[in-house]
Amino acid sequence: MIPSIPDIAQPDLARRLRHKLDNKTKPLGSLGRIEALAVQLGLILGSESPQLIRPQLVVFAGDHGLAARGVSAYPSDVTAQMVENFLSGGAAVSVLARQHGLALTVVDCGVRSVFSPRAGLIDRKIAAGTADCLGAPAMTPAQCAQAVHNGREIVAELGGNALLLGEMGIGNTSCASLLLARLAGRDLADCVGAGTGLDAAGVERKRRVLQEVMTFHANAIAPLDVLAAMGGFEIATMVGAVLEAAAGRRVIVVDGFISSAAVLVAQRLAPHVVQRCVFSHRSGEPGHALMLDQLAAGPGEPPRALLDLGLRLGEGSGAALAWPLLVSACALLDEMASFESAGVSGPRDGTPQAQR
Amino acid sequence: MIPSIPDIAQPDLARRLRHKLDNKTKPLGSLGRIEALAVQLGLILGSESPQLIRPQLVVFAGDHGLAARGVSAYPSDVTAQMVENFLSGGAAVSVLARQHGLALTVVDCGVRSVFSPRAGLIDRKIAAGTADCLGAPAMTPAQCAQAVHNGREIVAELGGNALLLGEMGIGNTSCASLLLARLAGRDLADCVGAGTGLDAAGVERKRRVLQEVMTFHANAIAPLDVLAAMGGFEIATMVGAVLEAAAGRRVIVVDGFISSAAVLVAQRLAPHVVQRCVFSHRSGEPGHALMLDQLAAGPGEPPRALLDLGLRLGEGSGAALAWPLLVSACALLDEMASFESAGVSGPRDGTPQAQR
Repeated sequence: MIPSIPDIAQPDLARRLRHKLDNKTKPLGSLGRIEALAVQLGLILGSESPQLIRPQLVVFAGDHGLAARGVSAYPSDVTAQMVENFLSGGAAVSVLARQHGLALTVVDCGVRSVFSPRAGLIDRKIAAGTADCLGAPAMTPAQCAQAVHNGREIVAELGGNALLLGEMGIGNTSCASLLLARLAGRDLADCVGAGTGLDAAGVERKRRVLQEVMTFHANAIAPLDVLAAMGGFEIATMVGAVLEAAAGRRVIVVDGFISSAAVLVAQRLAPHVVQRCVFSHRSGEPGHALMLDQLAAGPGEPPRALLDLGLRLGEGSGAALAWPLLVSACALLDEMASFESAGVSGPRDGTPQAQR
Repeated sequence: MIPSIPDIAQPDLARRLRHKLDNKTKPLGSLGRIEALAVQLGLILGSESPQLIRPQLVVFAGDHGLAARGVSAYPSDVTAQMVENFLSGGAAVSVLARQHGLALTVVDCGVRSVFSPRAGLIDRKIAAGTADCLGAPAMTPAQCAQAVHNGREIVAELGGNALLLGEMGIGNTSCASLLLARLAGRDLADCVGAGTGLDAAGVERKRRVLQEVMTFHANAIAPLDVLAAMGGFEIATMVGAVLEAAAGRRVIVVDGFISSAAVLVAQRLAPHVVQRCVFSHRSGEPGHALMLDQLAAGPGEPPRALLDLGLRLGEGSGAALAWPLLVSACALLDEMASFESAGVSGPRDGTPQAQR
């Protein structure tokens, strides 16, 4: 069920990528974090000239039994309405996917409504929403395993070498908060935020409900048990998608708080997953910074997201907004002249640029 | 010489833009600073559906007499070599301009070399580099006025409604530091950084030289006097470009530390210039944060740059990297469905979304 996801550190290739960047016509390191991104993309795709091919933005959608307890500012119906909006091209992520030439696929992982079949929609519905996880596990172990399997299968069938994660599910910031609190051993209060726009009283009510859920599922400790107990169908399917994309050495562009929660589960199952992840933005949801702290790929610094624009929409909108930066990183690596080829002098002291 | 640059606050249009965004199918404010950007672009272009037309990235290039004093890690020859590199397509900004469909123009404002005429190069050379400003003004008042005039003329002749600022000139972080220190009344030490990559001793030497320059030009106080005394031909030409673009209500996409210095001079001449400016990134050069603090458009917060990626290259590379975010802001405003048009429910409490 969990594919093999090897370490892709490759010190030799990293050195060659670094050397290539250092010989480009620019002061050393002057492209800042775009240079680190270029090295990461090279390591993921195993090339000194990584090329991003047919990027796939997949929006995983599902409903949540817990939503009936008023943990979101919006009613559950909005999940299905937004699926229709994604498909008809009017959602934020639809607009951004068009702008950047990203193939957009919506997966019904467990929405309460039934959709008519059409292009761009994949039906992998496990059930019409999860069970209310205050009183039962959100899903059975078999449902959870099926969702993870579905995610793997969907990614395996999609082409390209880059997966951008999106999601839709009224109530799913609650799941992400619960997964973070349990898997990271953090105080729940630090993990809960306003989601789609609760006021202070709403956040406090949400926090109380989620605390009861945490207590009810006190025995769920192992990652897949936590996922089944307090996750969602769209999150479980996304976990499978992340695992498959990582196993296939695709670039995984993580969106915000909820898709990071799926990555967190996947990382607990296969730590090297994170080497393949580009974190597109730092969400306005306060738990997201804690989540990123959990997702260090190695002993070093936790990952820094590319954008910090106060986004808190989900859908993959942050992943799509950041996408051109990945394209830029590859283009700069591939197309910029070297000091030698352009006949540009190095620094005044005569030290060869790349050795400084 | 200084065109009229009126206030474009337009509270009615701002309200309509806000209302339009609030009725889009997303939680209120969930696109974060992209929403503020969309409102700003609407106000600049005077439209509820602003469209960016034929964006122009202009790289202003010039040499600096002060460079002979070792204030940069690179020799002056690199200015001309990089102009050739921009024109042959191998520089970072060349790659990024191609990626985003930005017209790229290089202006020789005062490079020491002579270039053969070709497409994409505009000759507005004032002289072969400024005078060494430790001992004389960098340029005469007449040269300074001519450079500002040139910048206005260049922008007036370029099409489109968006100007992206770029620059090249070995030694020009020194000019930017000097302009900032004098115009903002800041301690010079807070305004000086490593530029293209000086080591600690180099930064200290640069600071000592610039302190002498500050003392030598202690009587330069008025913005154009400061510009002539301690600026550069490319910066003075850029000041004119900014003024003309602002007068013509174009969107001005500011790059990093040096182009912000040109905006600072322009703002001291015509404060409403800043309403038209989008600050693309926060430079790795430490003075840039101080510069942004000086550039508040009104009594509110200073502008926040869109990207914070540790860039310190110049050339317009940061402006080009941020450009797709401006395109996204316009596309989202124009193409996203409203709650009504998409049949999506508002928040649970029934309050109409746009009135919350």
